[in-house]
Amino acid sequence: MNYSPQNPKWSGRDRFVLSNGHACALQYTMLHLAGYNISLDDLKNFRQIDSITPGHPEVGVTDGIEVSTGPLGQGISNAVGLAIAETNLAARFNKPGFKVIDNFTYVICGDGCLQEGVSGEASSLAGTLGLGKVIVLYDDNNITIDGGTDLSFTEDVLKRYEAYGWHTQSVNNGDSAEIGDMRAAVKNAQEVTDRPSMISIKTVIGYGAAKQGTAGVHGAPLGDADIKKVKADFGLNPEASFEVPAEVTSFYSEVQEKSKATYEAYETMFKAYTAAFPTESAELTRSMAGKLPEGWASKLTKYTPEDKTLATRQSSQQVLSKLVDAIPELIGGSADLTPSNLTKVEGNKLDYSKDSRDGRYIRFGVREHAMCSISNGICAYGGSVPFAATFLVFAGYALGAMRLSALSHFRVLYIYTHDSIGLGEDGPTHQPIETLISLRSIPNMTVMRPADANEVTGAYVQALENAHGPTVLALSRQGCVNLPGSSAEGVAKGAYVVEDATGPLDVVIVASGSEVQLSVSASAELKAKGVSVRVVSFPCWSLFEKQSAEYKSSVFPNGIPVLSVEAASTFGWAKYSHGSIGMTSFGASGKGPALMAHFGFSVENVVAKAQKLIETYKRAAPSLERPF
Amino acid sequence: MNYSPQNPKWSGRDRFVLSNGHACALQYTMLHLAGYNISLDDLKNFRQIDSITPGHPEVGVTDGIEVSTGPLGQGISNAVGLAIAETNLAARFNKPGFKVIDNFTYVICGDGCLQEGVSGEASSLAGTLGLGKVIVLYDDNNITIDGGTDLSFTEDVLKRYEAYGWHTQSVNNGDSAEIGDMRAAVKNAQEVTDRPSMISIKTVIGYGAAKQGTAGVHGAPLGDADIKKVKADFGLNPEASFEVPAEVTSFYSEVQEKSKATYEAYETMFKAYTAAFPTESAELTRSMAGKLPEGWASKLTKYTPEDKTLATRQSSQQVLSKLVDAIPELIGGSADLTPSNLTKVEGNKLDYSKDSRDGRYIRFGVREHAMCSISNGICAYGGSVPFAATFLVFAGYALGAMRLSALSHFRVLYIYTHDSIGLGEDGPTHQPIETLISLRSIPNMTVMRPADANEVTGAYVQALENAHGPTVLALSRQGCVNLPGSSAEGVAKGAYVVEDATGPLDVVIVASGSEVQLSVSASAELKAKGVSVRVVSFPCWSLFEKQSAEYKSSVFPNGIPVLSVEAASTFGWAKYSHGSIGMTSFGASGKGPALMAHFGFSVENVVAKAQKLIETYKRAAPSLERPF
Repeated sequence: MNYSPQNPKWSGRDRFVLSNGHACALQYTMLHLAGYNISLDDLKNFRQIDSITPGHPEVGVTDGIEVSTGPLGQGISNAVGLAIAETNLAARFNKPGFKVIDNFTYVICGDGCLQEGVSGEASSLAGTLGLGKVIVLYDDNNITIDGGTDLSFTEDVLKRYEAYGWHTQSVNNGDSAEIGDMRAAVKNAQEVTDRPSMISIKTVIGYGAAKQGTAGVHGAPLGDADIKKVKADFGLNPEASFEVPAEVTSFYSEVQEKSKATYEAYETMFKAYTAAFPTESAELTRSMAGKLPEGWASKLTKYTPEDKTLATRQSSQQVLSKLVDAIPELIGGSADLTPSNLTKVEGNKLDYSKDSRDGRYIRFGVREHAMCSISNGICAYGGSVPFAATFLVFAGYALGAMRLSALSHFRVLYIYTHDSIGLGEDGPTHQPIETLISLRSIPNMTVMRPADANEVTGAYVQALENAHGPTVLALSRQGCVNLPGSSAEGVAKGAYVVEDATGPLDVVIVASGSEVQLSVSASAELKAKGVSVRVVSFPCWSLFEKQSAEYKSSVFPNGIPVLSVEAASTFGWAKYSHGSIGMTSFGASGKGPALMAHFGFSVENVVAKAQKLIETYKRAAPSLERPF
Repeated sequence: MNYSPQNPKWSGRDRFVLSNGHACALQYTMLHLAGYNISLDDLKNFRQIDSITPGHPEVGVTDGIEVSTGPLGQGISNAVGLAIAETNLAARFNKPGFKVIDNFTYVICGDGCLQEGVSGEASSLAGTLGLGKVIVLYDDNNITIDGGTDLSFTEDVLKRYEAYGWHTQSVNNGDSAEIGDMRAAVKNAQEVTDRPSMISIKTVIGYGAAKQGTAGVHGAPLGDADIKKVKADFGLNPEASFEVPAEVTSFYSEVQEKSKATYEAYETMFKAYTAAFPTESAELTRSMAGKLPEGWASKLTKYTPEDKTLATRQSSQQVLSKLVDAIPELIGGSADLTPSNLTKVEGNKLDYSKDSRDGRYIRFGVREHAMCSISNGICAYGGSVPFAATFLVFAGYALGAMRLSALSHFRVLYIYTHDSIGLGEDGPTHQPIETLISLRSIPNMTVMRPADANEVTGAYVQALENAHGPTVLALSRQGCVNLPGSSAEGVAKGAYVVEDATGPLDVVIVASGSEVQLSVSASAELKAKGVSVRVVSFPCWSLFEKQSAEYKSSVFPNGIPVLSVEAASTFGWAKYSHGSIGMTSFGASGKGPALMAHFGFSVENVVAKAQKLIETYKRAAPSLERPF
């Protein structure tokens, strides 16, 4: 493997992913030996608060860790993303004689990773895409936590991977001191460049321990006596802990020298590349640093009420169309809902495929979970800004990967359309009710539900400017008129006054997405009845939470009752409102507008509820009462 | 197929699942022709509010629909559950000469279902379990919404299914009027009883239409002219709509007669079975009706503070141990976390497997999503109460299936342990922060986080008594002392006073799970300082919401500030509390107690925050102010 302990983020490095992250003690130890910034003390602090050696590998915490693994199936799926990024950047930046992007992606995984559906999805796609530089070493030890794999995992794994179009090999002596067979298999795998490679390596879990070959060594320590025996059997000092034999130190010194030479050769090559192709070099350096091109947002325009009413998925298409041109590293696609998500535009019309590595549109297939996990991998590689699209409700298929985007501080754009019952006839299986809430409750996940085209613009700007976390754009199938008071700048604050009253307020109506236009219509009717109403558009809760107390109170003034209107679960709205119009059940199959009216999203109902709320709070004694 | 349109819930029927639920217009039409309670008017009302012909099949809405499908991959995975239930009940109830349980499970699915990871997980397990009566007809039409399958799905599907241990066949003339090949393949599949069967049937999408063979006929109507042409080409009246040719009506009359005869033969057999085996017959009839055995809860005991402190996962093990004995239809298992979830007890020590169909413990493997989807299938079959176990955080892998449990009104028990940062060293990838919130926001999903053994008992009682929806039991790895004031009856109300003050209240502390004991400890310290404190245990939000306004106000009295303490996201707590101690970030790797203290779950912090809250509300003008 090529790597540089001194510059762990060296873009020429091979990527290594420990998909069975629970085995990270080994990885930390190898990183220590290889010269990374992990001391013996760090190893001793394994699994302690604030250590750089947590219980599962975490990107950003430990040098040499590419992605956060542990939830099974993610690492191998991330690797597919790492390889997509590599091949795509190679196609864009390499020049004859200058392979500035050229690395393998190695994965170690166990039975657990291969049982998880997400790995199957990602592996099938990797086969279609012919990602020949992915090499998976499968620790085939026949044991999972519950016991032998005969309990639940009797399939022929290599045959399955052959069916996916992978190159497969078997090594039967994974525990032997003779590692020549493994080396040879890896060499073969490196030479097969048109297909990803899977090498099954037969091993015995806890090899050499008293309980070897049983589930008993999976999660529990061996015990002192057995540890001593194992150490002695392998020629180590049984009484010593955290002692590296001189022989090992000396071996790794040599390895480190070799690594350094490789690294320096690359640096020399990159200097020559920079001299020959200064534009490309600057561009690659910029994008690998996670910086967007100068002036990327300059082509975005302001919409006015005279502009055509669009569904926000359509506004998204218009905005995305400009962004794809302005930001060459924007790459992504849909989980087989391209014509619905509207994520394919002129600038990304070329698909990324086996035959067109420079394509910028990824056909993920009907594989939401892998799509998100792969997007994490693309982001982890550096140099790309990935987006992933499906229906909002199918976030429920992919939360395992999406929470890792947030935990890993990955800038992934989730373009999720069909945001509510407003999608209509597909019915409750396709209508998100709880999904917005689920996503809003994930730390470091920014969730946007824009009300019109200006807010869609603002949502994209916020999403792209946030280099340290993912953003969900919840977009409508239903039309959203362009509001006179909407603005991209308002979106930056999370919530803002989109229409105000002149005199002292009777009530504030707060809404998101398509319910903002409804609230504006209701406000007109209320004003005609002499009620003083303010309408607040609330596209993003987490951005609002970051505002000053002064700003928050200026939007929701003290003592004024607030009514929330959102075609989603009312869960969580009590923080901001005293009454809510929202969903308290699943949706139904029917025409979108009919459903909206059926579930109370009508001017009539908003007006009635607002009036009732005003009355309630006139009558109620001022108190700490909660709005049960 | 065996079925009875007059008694759609006939337990002897073959089960049919349309996994690609978007094709349900065809299923509704077939149900109409077969004599089910679906009229031509119902067919005309396709996809309208309150019709029995919604946009995707929904169990409980339409006779003849076994499971709700549409989210791809679910139906075929449900089918694995239907077959597990069938084989298990057959082993328990059939007697020589009396196959009272004996049916096939047929599935139609498309490319989309087979791309989804959940179907891979379920199919791999089906292979291990040798579910020979599952027969999948794969509509192999090479088209998905985005276009041809060459874009993203080039794998060899049949080879993959062979690798899973399935019997596979190919039929190349799926569009031909000559259906003999299909019949023969199904007959072969029926005869292979040791392995599930997959039959790939080559078809042309939109066969006969102008746009046949393209993605263009997937989601959009053909257009009037083309519809007329297709009708004419197939010998129908091009001008007529919703007209059933006499020939078809007559054919289906014959089919209906045959079905009736089969049904009546079964009924006769079942009468003889009842005479010969009255106990078994009554037991089968009871469990198929979804009723629990008389007195099932009688063995459950009350815990006292003198009883040993247990993690709630350990109390769960004790309770489950009694329930498994009391409720023979309780069947389930873990996604390879049995030693952690503690779901295997004496009464279910026999694994359900190929060789022991009467086993009651299911080894799901590392397959959370399939586990939940399979559990839905087990419930859908009738006669069983399924449970499914994993770590709480991995609900994020399975929400796609879990929301369908809720939508389908299925009684599935989700036994999810390792409920918080309290799990310790595994770190943030394994520590749920947002998961409780995600689950609480799903309509008809009951979420329980019990505080001690009595509450665990209460949580199981509520979960089992609710025949119309799933329940999540969020259980701890950390120890929970048995509280003097806890009770199973309190759990039934969602929230209740677990420790009270004598005089007028200064503050209410509300908590769930292991934070109740913390709150009780903090309360002792506050009382020593002269503060009048009430502690409320709040195991279940949705049950509390169902209580009367009087009861709610009796728990949270008007005008008294409330502090919530829960080792999860504070999201949503503003509905009940004026201040919160909770998580606003991901967790960390470290010892459980150290992490709890680190993130503010200490007596000291609870006392300080409670005092601060009392002060704040003494100073604050009574108002509608929100606690930003």
